[in-house]
Amino acid sequence: MEKTLPNRAIEWRQGQLILLDQRQLPSTVEFLQINNVNEVFCAIKDMVVRGAPAIGITAAYGVVLSAIHHEHCELKLAISKIKADMDLLVTARPTAINLKWSIDRMQACLENSTDNFVESLEAEAIQIHDEDIAANNKMGELGAEYIQDSVNVMTHCNAGALATGGYGTALGVIRCAFSQGKIESVFANETRPWFQGARLTAWELQQENIPVNLICDSAAASALRAHNVEWIIVGADRVAANGDVANKIGTYGLAALAKHVGKKFMVVAPTSTIDLNSASGNDVAIEERGSQEVTHVAEKAIASKGVNVWNPVFDITPAELIDVLVTEHGVVETPNQEKIAQLFADKDNN
Amino acid sequence: MEKTLPNRAIEWRQGQLILLDQRQLPSTVEFLQINNVNEVFCAIKDMVVRGAPAIGITAAYGVVLSAIHHEHCELKLAISKIKADMDLLVTARPTAINLKWSIDRMQACLENSTDNFVESLEAEAIQIHDEDIAANNKMGELGAEYIQDSVNVMTHCNAGALATGGYGTALGVIRCAFSQGKIESVFANETRPWFQGARLTAWELQQENIPVNLICDSAAASALRAHNVEWIIVGADRVAANGDVANKIGTYGLAALAKHVGKKFMVVAPTSTIDLNSASGNDVAIEERGSQEVTHVAEKAIASKGVNVWNPVFDITPAELIDVLVTEHGVVETPNQEKIAQLFADKDNN
Repeated sequence: MEKTLPNRAIEWRQGQLILLDQRQLPSTVEFLQINNVNEVFCAIKDMVVRGAPAIGITAAYGVVLSAIHHEHCELKLAISKIKADMDLLVTARPTAINLKWSIDRMQACLENSTDNFVESLEAEAIQIHDEDIAANNKMGELGAEYIQDSVNVMTHCNAGALATGGYGTALGVIRCAFSQGKIESVFANETRPWFQGARLTAWELQQENIPVNLICDSAAASALRAHNVEWIIVGADRVAANGDVANKIGTYGLAALAKHVGKKFMVVAPTSTIDLNSASGNDVAIEERGSQEVTHVAEKAIASKGVNVWNPVFDITPAELIDVLVTEHGVVETPNQEKIAQLFADKDNN
Repeated sequence: MEKTLPNRAIEWRQGQLILLDQRQLPSTVEFLQINNVNEVFCAIKDMVVRGAPAIGITAAYGVVLSAIHHEHCELKLAISKIKADMDLLVTARPTAINLKWSIDRMQACLENSTDNFVESLEAEAIQIHDEDIAANNKMGELGAEYIQDSVNVMTHCNAGALATGGYGTALGVIRCAFSQGKIESVFANETRPWFQGARLTAWELQQENIPVNLICDSAAASALRAHNVEWIIVGADRVAANGDVANKIGTYGLAALAKHVGKKFMVVAPTSTIDLNSASGNDVAIEERGSQEVTHVAEKAIASKGVNVWNPVFDITPAELIDVLVTEHGVVETPNQEKIAQLFADKDNN
């Protein structure tokens, strides 16, 4: 198994999109060649690729595949077909705003290009991908400044190289702080129902020899109290204008717990994850997935047959529970609407 | 599948102990005949039977099996052999105090009996079993008085008929309140790593047509906020003299969350679960089980290979997070050392 694998979870190879099938990790490392928009749609919906930034990047390449497919159509028809594909892609999953953000960028690019729309869109998708990696590196440095020496940290779900263009948001901060000798070990919550922590985060950390302790989600409270866990560090699927954070189910409970026991809570997300059109968490659609994810593991039934299941896969963490929001354009401490508006004003002025 | 099955999770049939194998529920309903003390030890350790009161009852029958086995020895030798078996049984699992409580009762019985020790011990074990069912029924009534009309409740792990002599502690309260028309539905946390909620609690509630929603443990916070969940109701494996509660991993986080969102937290446990020799939760041994419980489900690996695992299966909920402690001798609101001492004083005076 190559050490560099996670950096190739999404790869664009001269007109071909190659995705690492995250549903099969870590037992099987299989790359899927994605040939058209419908396959991109399914890959996002069925979680071949997951993680808000990674979904956005994948969708951008999906638009390029659409453009290639319609390259030889009459221009007006081509543009209308590509826009229809964009409309499809944006519905693949509801919560991560990076999907819409990415499609919006591709749409603006399409509107500003004419004859050479394939080249323009391809360049834009690669740019989105490259910018995401650069943002991760920057956030890693900014977030690591908050980590004291010799602490344990906790993370939930997978906000790593696999969830982004590469390097990771929450795991980017952890990677950077670890390289600075500040982190002793990472408590990785297994993250039911999809086991992103057990399957993906543990695997990524093991690749780089960062000490990791896998725990059940419900052991988080004990870990915070019994071990020297000073920070909970997570990514985000959408940050509302007031600083409320939509992230993997369980994040809200962890943030409440951190407050209860006096530990710190850090959210790491690029500005592409901040949605100024969502005034608060109340405006964020929370995806509910099928009951099978809860009742079955590896196709084996683990729950009482026919039981009713409620399976929301994201939750909303109120801004007041967040100590630090790290973006590539700067860190917002105790985020609120005013500070986030200021972040965007400063960003646009630079 | 018979409706009455859960009431027969532990059955004593004229010198034979029959246990429902809870590891295989709900897909397979299999009863194991337990023939000797070593098999009782393994059945408790390997979780054929689990739940603090059920463990205590099972151990008591184990002592009877030992007595039967040594019935024809010379009396002094028999007593010493039975005591050695008691010493073994008490080590089967460390956290649930009912195990020690039950063995202590059997030991006192043995010391007070002479020639007819088999009969005496058998009568005592049956008495322990019967008293537990009676306690459950009483606690059900007492706890149900606290439930308002038309609410949802949440429970964690399985504190039902399967975990006790029958009827249940937390599920006893839920059964009673449901029969009074007060409960609309029950949110059952799946309870990793052993899925007691998904496998046992959901199944028990389905048997009696009590509406149940199965959720991942980490969805509890969202359920408390999004649904009308007014009470979290759990059992206990040990209650310390100051009211701290050792219970299934995740209980502490739920209690902290209930406080954070202004919901009520109820612990239902017979006085056999209260350990006056544990001054506080700090004195309670927390069992840590093998990594396989976390890394594998149904023998299929779901975690990154070779990952380090921390698997504490109980945690300590500080007394100050508990609104109501229900026992068969009365309800203690906002428990503390003084009130629990008073409960025992009143009990002994009655």
